[in-house]
Amino acid sequence: MKVKIITIGDEILIGQIIDTNSAFISKELINIGVEVTEILTIGDSKIDITNSLKNSQNKFDIVILTGGLGPTNDDITKDSFCDYFKDKLVLNKEVLNHIENLFKNFKDNPITDLNRAQAYLPSRAKLIPNDFGTAAGMMVQNLNTLYVSLPGVPFEMKSMISSYLIPEIKKEFKCPVILNKTLLTYGLGESTIANKLIEFESSLPSNFKLAYLPNLGRVRLRLSSKGDDKKSLEKIMDDLIVELYRVLGKTIIGFEFSNSIEKEIGKKLIQFNKTISTAESLTGGLISSRLTSIPGSSNYFKGSVVAYDTLIKENVLKVNNDTISKHSVVSSEVAKEMVLGVKKIFNTDYAIATTGNAGPSKGDSKQPIGKVFIAISTPTDLKCFEFNFGEHREKNINKSVNKSLELFFSELLTS
Amino acid sequence: MKVKIITIGDEILIGQIIDTNSAFISKELINIGVEVTEILTIGDSKIDITNSLKNSQNKFDIVILTGGLGPTNDDITKDSFCDYFKDKLVLNKEVLNHIENLFKNFKDNPITDLNRAQAYLPSRAKLIPNDFGTAAGMMVQNLNTLYVSLPGVPFEMKSMISSYLIPEIKKEFKCPVILNKTLLTYGLGESTIANKLIEFESSLPSNFKLAYLPNLGRVRLRLSSKGDDKKSLEKIMDDLIVELYRVLGKTIIGFEFSNSIEKEIGKKLIQFNKTISTAESLTGGLISSRLTSIPGSSNYFKGSVVAYDTLIKENVLKVNNDTISKHSVVSSEVAKEMVLGVKKIFNTDYAIATTGNAGPSKGDSKQPIGKVFIAISTPTDLKCFEFNFGEHREKNINKSVNKSLELFFSELLTS
Repeated sequence: MKVKIITIGDEILIGQIIDTNSAFISKELINIGVEVTEILTIGDSKIDITNSLKNSQNKFDIVILTGGLGPTNDDITKDSFCDYFKDKLVLNKEVLNHIENLFKNFKDNPITDLNRAQAYLPSRAKLIPNDFGTAAGMMVQNLNTLYVSLPGVPFEMKSMISSYLIPEIKKEFKCPVILNKTLLTYGLGESTIANKLIEFESSLPSNFKLAYLPNLGRVRLRLSSKGDDKKSLEKIMDDLIVELYRVLGKTIIGFEFSNSIEKEIGKKLIQFNKTISTAESLTGGLISSRLTSIPGSSNYFKGSVVAYDTLIKENVLKVNNDTISKHSVVSSEVAKEMVLGVKKIFNTDYAIATTGNAGPSKGDSKQPIGKVFIAISTPTDLKCFEFNFGEHREKNINKSVNKSLELFFSELLTS
Repeated sequence: MKVKIITIGDEILIGQIIDTNSAFISKELINIGVEVTEILTIGDSKIDITNSLKNSQNKFDIVILTGGLGPTNDDITKDSFCDYFKDKLVLNKEVLNHIENLFKNFKDNPITDLNRAQAYLPSRAKLIPNDFGTAAGMMVQNLNTLYVSLPGVPFEMKSMISSYLIPEIKKEFKCPVILNKTLLTYGLGESTIANKLIEFESSLPSNFKLAYLPNLGRVRLRLSSKGDDKKSLEKIMDDLIVELYRVLGKTIIGFEFSNSIEKEIGKKLIQFNKTISTAESLTGGLISSRLTSIPGSSNYFKGSVVAYDTLIKENVLKVNNDTISKHSVVSSEVAKEMVLGVKKIFNTDYAIATTGNAGPSKGDSKQPIGKVFIAISTPTDLKCFEFNFGEHREKNINKSVNKSLELFFSELLTS
């Protein structure tokens, strides 16, 4: 089965917004065994939309369009449908009713003829109701292709996908089983891992695929497979993962699912009934915000001092002035005093501290740009790790955050 | 001039990652007058890549591909180039040198033959150096189309776009002037605004376009235009904006910047020679990390206290225990004491404080989930703003961060 997503909107083509709709749709489809073959973004242009309909005809089983269904002049998906399918717009009373009901709640925004016009759909179209907005969705089966049109507003589109489209596809199409598992590794580069996996890759069953996803010091390994029988796919997948663990050992730090490392950290801290705080220099509060992105984090996360300024490290975190003069503010010694300082302020079991030169220019230390120290204090131990992350500010900050969370998680599991 | 972006990667098609590269590239191109006509995402498949090269031939002036340049088996862009351009790979000594130098710093990851293989490029390709990684970029001019291939790792790709590709395009192509201005409106629906703008739209010059971008209670109006003469375009744009203000009045709450708001804040603080600190509860350090994402932020950002725990608000920020007992920790009174507390600790001119119930469960306050207080202290004033952002944790945190930055920026401009 071949599926194409087409997102319509000049705002995506000029980089004003990032297309997040496609990722949502792809994820929902993969869950029911449907793979997306390509994603296309085009502008608010009738020619481009009509061409995209024509170019997809019979090449794809399903084409899902988002956007261009609003009430204004730049919304032209329905016109393009009528043009390509040689159809015309007719009033759908169910939609009109729904729109009129929605507007009863908006005192400042009385209903207009533009809104009422949204109740017109191509005569051949099957309605996909939009419970949260005025832009109705629609489906048109044309020859071998099912064309689906949904609004671009994410929360409207999302509910229409989950409530209407997914059940419809499950009913009308026979979908294969798709399995994906992603392993998180750290410490080795993409090519070093690939070298270790030459034999593994060459003996992979033909319906299994291995992908390398490198990012900032971590490489994710995704095993994916497709077939008819879920049980037998799962069995092979399990065996392959055992084999990966055998070859890569401790390089694998876990699975990636929906669970992020900050979620795993939270689960462990709750399980151990322990607390954490952070003292952040170059990471600027990003470790703290990652930790607090997890619901329930107030049970273990007490707080953070973002000590960007050298004086703050002295005055708030009580880092010794002598230590700074002697070793500079970017040093293992300062990182250690920071972590002990913040642990005392917040009275926590664990703490993480970061100090480093993020760049592009040097701050109060002569250490090279990219030099980073991460200190971790546990109930029984104090450790500091040193890194050289390179010249790039954004990379230095993000690598420091990821590294801090990984190192901390590993200490948490072993301490 | 017609430009197409092609992003390669199964991880995008299965929704594992969101394609942010395209938005970055589009934005950089629009700045030099180059519009992207379409964006296509395809999988790690040689047939799909080769087909996408063929289908773009002579229909686009420039085709920019990202991804598929890594050292492993699933990286097949160079093979596809050789197939389509009937070319073969030859060793590029400059790239080999660069790769070998990069690996000198990685003790745990010795260079492998897979890395050395990355120094091979199609013989017709012109090198685009990758200062931050091993995957070289390349350009091939084939008939009327310039094909550009860049790695998919964002920070590597970004620097290659800015340092090499943009200057190259400016040199080789005559680019028109493109102007975009986006106005933020609040309070009226898309169709109500459109009704007020019927006359405005019908009298728009033919090289100007108006788009409506509705999202969560705000409608952004984007005016875009294209032409040869920057001055005259700007003059017409200014007149049109005056006219929009005349028709929509206070519905317009401001412009949307092309720079991020944290960058604009940084520019103003440097200009005024003022400093800032933050005290964050539900925002967990995210305001601080947004502010410190800007190079040079150490000139005005002193630090932050993330006071997640109620006791920390008392012990570190010196919020009065009575205030908390009387008004609860989620209150205007506590937000104000937090902002004054942090301003004193860090000795700054300005400060921002947030407190609220992010959800999903309530913390130490009985205030409803989504209730948020944002306090701002300026050299002469102390203000607090109250919000109800709803039930969704992630939305509550992010709306609080965005609102804090917007409110602070507006205070900064007027105080």
